[in-house]
Amino acid sequence: MQEQVAIGIDIGGTNTVIGLITAGGKCLAEECIKTEEYPLMEDFIERIHAIGRERSAALNLSLAGVGIGVPTGNSDNGTFNASNLPWRGVIPVAALFRERFNLPVFVVNDAKAAVLGEMSYGGARGMKDFVIITLGTGLGCGIVINGELVHGHDGFAGELGHTIVTPGGRACGCGRRGCLETYASATGIKRTAIELLATEIDDSPLRKIPFADIGSKMIAEAAGQGDPIAIKTLRYTGEVLGLALANLVAIIRPEAIFLQGGAARAGAHFHDAVNRAMDENLLFLYKGKISTRCSAFSNGATVGAAALVWRALK
Amino acid sequence: MQEQVAIGIDIGGTNTVIGLITAGGKCLAEECIKTEEYPLMEDFIERIHAIGRERSAALNLSLAGVGIGVPTGNSDNGTFNASNLPWRGVIPVAALFRERFNLPVFVVNDAKAAVLGEMSYGGARGMKDFVIITLGTGLGCGIVINGELVHGHDGFAGELGHTIVTPGGRACGCGRRGCLETYASATGIKRTAIELLATEIDDSPLRKIPFADIGSKMIAEAAGQGDPIAIKTLRYTGEVLGLALANLVAIIRPEAIFLQGGAARAGAHFHDAVNRAMDENLLFLYKGKISTRCSAFSNGATVGAAALVWRALK
Repeated sequence: MQEQVAIGIDIGGTNTVIGLITAGGKCLAEECIKTEEYPLMEDFIERIHAIGRERSAALNLSLAGVGIGVPTGNSDNGTFNASNLPWRGVIPVAALFRERFNLPVFVVNDAKAAVLGEMSYGGARGMKDFVIITLGTGLGCGIVINGELVHGHDGFAGELGHTIVTPGGRACGCGRRGCLETYASATGIKRTAIELLATEIDDSPLRKIPFADIGSKMIAEAAGQGDPIAIKTLRYTGEVLGLALANLVAIIRPEAIFLQGGAARAGAHFHDAVNRAMDENLLFLYKGKISTRCSAFSNGATVGAAALVWRALK
Repeated sequence: MQEQVAIGIDIGGTNTVIGLITAGGKCLAEECIKTEEYPLMEDFIERIHAIGRERSAALNLSLAGVGIGVPTGNSDNGTFNASNLPWRGVIPVAALFRERFNLPVFVVNDAKAAVLGEMSYGGARGMKDFVIITLGTGLGCGIVINGELVHGHDGFAGELGHTIVTPGGRACGCGRRGCLETYASATGIKRTAIELLATEIDDSPLRKIPFADIGSKMIAEAAGQGDPIAIKTLRYTGEVLGLALANLVAIIRPEAIFLQGGAARAGAHFHDAVNRAMDENLLFLYKGKISTRCSAFSNGATVGAAALVWRALK
């Protein structure tokens, strides 16, 4: 008999990741496509359908269903309406995928998909109070309290990335200034590096690369090779995020904070700076009792989106 | 038959309020004593015992039990250990009151007492997600999510007053700098007024009063009479608190935020400034959907502490 997998999809502003995930949370195949290359939703679905069918056929797997994590994803009606994605208005994404795949389809907020992954198969198993921070193009946040995802009064809790940490600070895509995600995210890391190229005089290979081509991965690599601008960039990012997390601890006191996403893998300079700044800014009640952990998943949201399928089929 | 009341006690850094509260949440008598005038816990208990016995005898009421709301109050073992109160170390307050009153005694964190009052008898009845902010000597905060008080991993959630809003800002009793409660609390209001007396040149009756004698009530009254320093003080306080609350909304998205405590009654200048600053700083998702409300209680914590007694007797 063929092994069953669920397709877990993590739709992000830059990348969309498609994973084939077993009921045990194991990712048997993963593929990444550029979200912005699909201005038409039909083409986007067609591409994912092709990937799902080809990859599962090649591995002799059968498909049990589709789980989709997407910014503003609404589990109740299977739609989303996200300003950072190519498609405008309310998109009935569950209905559209269901029509093409002829399989059960489930939709969830991207950050909550990450939470489900960590809770079902990752480091948060057995925890009742924890937080996942996803550092991608923006900063996503999923909060679990008393063992339950925090949805808030109307489903829009967890917008930690849009807490204002520097009044009058960097312009944010949300129309305001100084939001945490303008500093602590892949985009924020890039903006900090550019700012430091202007304010500092250290020599750096980054000076030879146009703004548009600089990425957070490149900065992490440069830091690993000792580039002072890149090291200062990751330290500064860590300090901003560490303070914000210390404040978050004072409000909800989670057991652990998991960091996910590309920028979370920006190496020791970054991770040390986050933990140092967090500990320095913690109220005495929490000092030494909490630090951030890197998530076990390269993409926890695909695993969590797939978990929705397995939960429904139980 | 005599009507039954519970004694609800709200122990604060400056004042301790004792209320006689019916099972329906009505306060039949209230008295306020200065906490710092009782360096010995025995004298403190003796005074409250006298108040409870005298007041209940005068109104022909019988006492059903004692509920105590106190900073760091631990419901599990009936103790507290608070740095802003006159008594040092772990105080077995439930046992001490039980011995003197010979009645059932219940202890809870002061902010959570306020939450219980608002939930049991106030504006939060029927709400599943809300926040109470208590503006007294410090800033207390009780958070309810999915209908449950948020305790956090070790019982120390809700320290919103100790989130750092201005890195390197005002010195706080907790040993750090820039905590929200150094700006948004009765003490914070006083500190802002003093700062404005230095930075501004407006004439003000406050210039004739020594630092030690200025209080937030006096400032609220001066603002009501058009004093520009007092008006600027309340506006600034409102702006700091409004931004912090807008950030809190982004994290947990409550249905409502209730303001309690003396400073919450600092009048329209203050309340308008809080709501304006909150709305200005809200992410578009929440704009126009949430504002702060004044609690119905002059002291919600006494009512909430008494509710513990009634819940236990049910």
